[in-house]
Amino acid sequence: MESVSRARCFGGTQHVFRHRSAETGTEMRFAAFVPPQAGAGRLPVVWFLSGLTCTEENFTMKAGAQRVAAELGLLLLVPDTSPRGEGVPDDPDGAYDFGLGAGFYLDATQAPWARNYRMESYLLHELPAQVAAELPADLTRQAIMGHSMGGHGAITLALKTPGRFASVSAFAPISAPMRCPWGEKALGGYLGPDRSAWRRYDSCALIEDGARLPELLVDQGMADTFLESQLKPDLLRAACADAGIPLTLRLQEGYDHSYFFIASFIEDHLRWHAGRLGRAA
Amino acid sequence: MESVSRARCFGGTQHVFRHRSAETGTEMRFAAFVPPQAGAGRLPVVWFLSGLTCTEENFTMKAGAQRVAAELGLLLLVPDTSPRGEGVPDDPDGAYDFGLGAGFYLDATQAPWARNYRMESYLLHELPAQVAAELPADLTRQAIMGHSMGGHGAITLALKTPGRFASVSAFAPISAPMRCPWGEKALGGYLGPDRSAWRRYDSCALIEDGARLPELLVDQGMADTFLESQLKPDLLRAACADAGIPLTLRLQEGYDHSYFFIASFIEDHLRWHAGRLGRAA
Repeated sequence: MESVSRARCFGGTQHVFRHRSAETGTEMRFAAFVPPQAGAGRLPVVWFLSGLTCTEENFTMKAGAQRVAAELGLLLLVPDTSPRGEGVPDDPDGAYDFGLGAGFYLDATQAPWARNYRMESYLLHELPAQVAAELPADLTRQAIMGHSMGGHGAITLALKTPGRFASVSAFAPISAPMRCPWGEKALGGYLGPDRSAWRRYDSCALIEDGARLPELLVDQGMADTFLESQLKPDLLRAACADAGIPLTLRLQEGYDHSYFFIASFIEDHLRWHAGRLGRAA
Repeated sequence: MESVSRARCFGGTQHVFRHRSAETGTEMRFAAFVPPQAGAGRLPVVWFLSGLTCTEENFTMKAGAQRVAAELGLLLLVPDTSPRGEGVPDDPDGAYDFGLGAGFYLDATQAPWARNYRMESYLLHELPAQVAAELPADLTRQAIMGHSMGGHGAITLALKTPGRFASVSAFAPISAPMRCPWGEKALGGYLGPDRSAWRRYDSCALIEDGARLPELLVDQGMADTFLESQLKPDLLRAACADAGIPLTLRLQEGYDHSYFFIASFIEDHLRWHAGRLGRAA
């Protein structure tokens, strides 16, 4: 694991690291904010999974999360959204919603994607091991959140690993990739035409199939241009209601899909997670 | 004045506008954050002048200022750092420290720069008139701050317009452009070889020549790679001491020149300005 950059920030340190990933067969980058409490031992972790087109940089630069994480003593981990580099296949038309920057937090099964597009295994196994070895992270206390494609990632990863994450939240998540154009393209491309294989990567389908979360916090902007076509929070609401999962769905009047929306509510989410990670919130 | 974008942010609205400037002979862009208190009448204004290579976007995306401005009821104005567009001359070698993105907040006198590079007049006259006409800004209550080249801009503009700005602060300002490579290149290029003409654009020279401020707040990162070569806060400290200007110079251990540094201390600056603008800080 090699340092790409480091900068003092709110008394802690904002890092970017790179490392060789066996899962993706590429070099991967991720951002890590280590708060000032790090000297006193291992700290609880909050993962943030980003949306389409993002790298580890967007959330790190734009969300204003470090201020709150520094206060609460949370270690923030922000992975990239796909493998990248020489030889990694991309969308044949260069579209933003498939391939580079659009890994959808799954393990692809179809050629030519299966070799590199293994973000699920990378995030659940390889990257945590790397983090535990080299950063003051307490992986018995983890929370996860994400935005848009990353909201889908956060919720599905948590649904598939009961007990692993103390809490889960999302900003404008893709609620049901099997039932929106972004998701149908991604799941069809990475996993092939058999829709039964897609269910492991759809929050609503996972819940229908019996997966559970203790609770879920979601913020959704009502001026989000993707609300009706791609995000469909009503499907998530219905699935949670049917399954008895306590969902706090906050519909935020006037907010769009941007990081101005995330920045406006990140403090609420971090305090919510901190309370569930045993930190004073 | 035309809207480029608008987004809800911390209950207020983050705008980007464009308008035709007679001063620069170009279309200019600027960002404006209008806080939620805007409905109740005109609000005090804080200008932020950015550093080399920046546009109106950097501070707007990275500093996290909107949260505090929304709490305090401050209207934030963030101009671009130079004229841009078809026919605007740039550094002949494409260097980052002269020409586009490097207007140095002055009115150039030398060809080919004199036609477009008129940032001082644009900021002191044209843009405020535009803002007063179209935004809920109370221009009897203005503060100004900036970063690096923009710290130079904020301090020099305030020194030249006594009474105009209720308060002035800076992050890592270029303290004495006449005595550093960035400044010597810029002032020589835009103003020609006669160094007496440079004194209007050098904070220390202006103070030596009798200009005064009621007080000044400066934060400077001690891990800033430009500290010794370009920024030279000791020159500003000496000039303020000689002139009896109360300078609060905070040397911040471990911080660099980036927006992570600005984000870490922007709240302090905004509260400091708010107190001097008659807002509860």
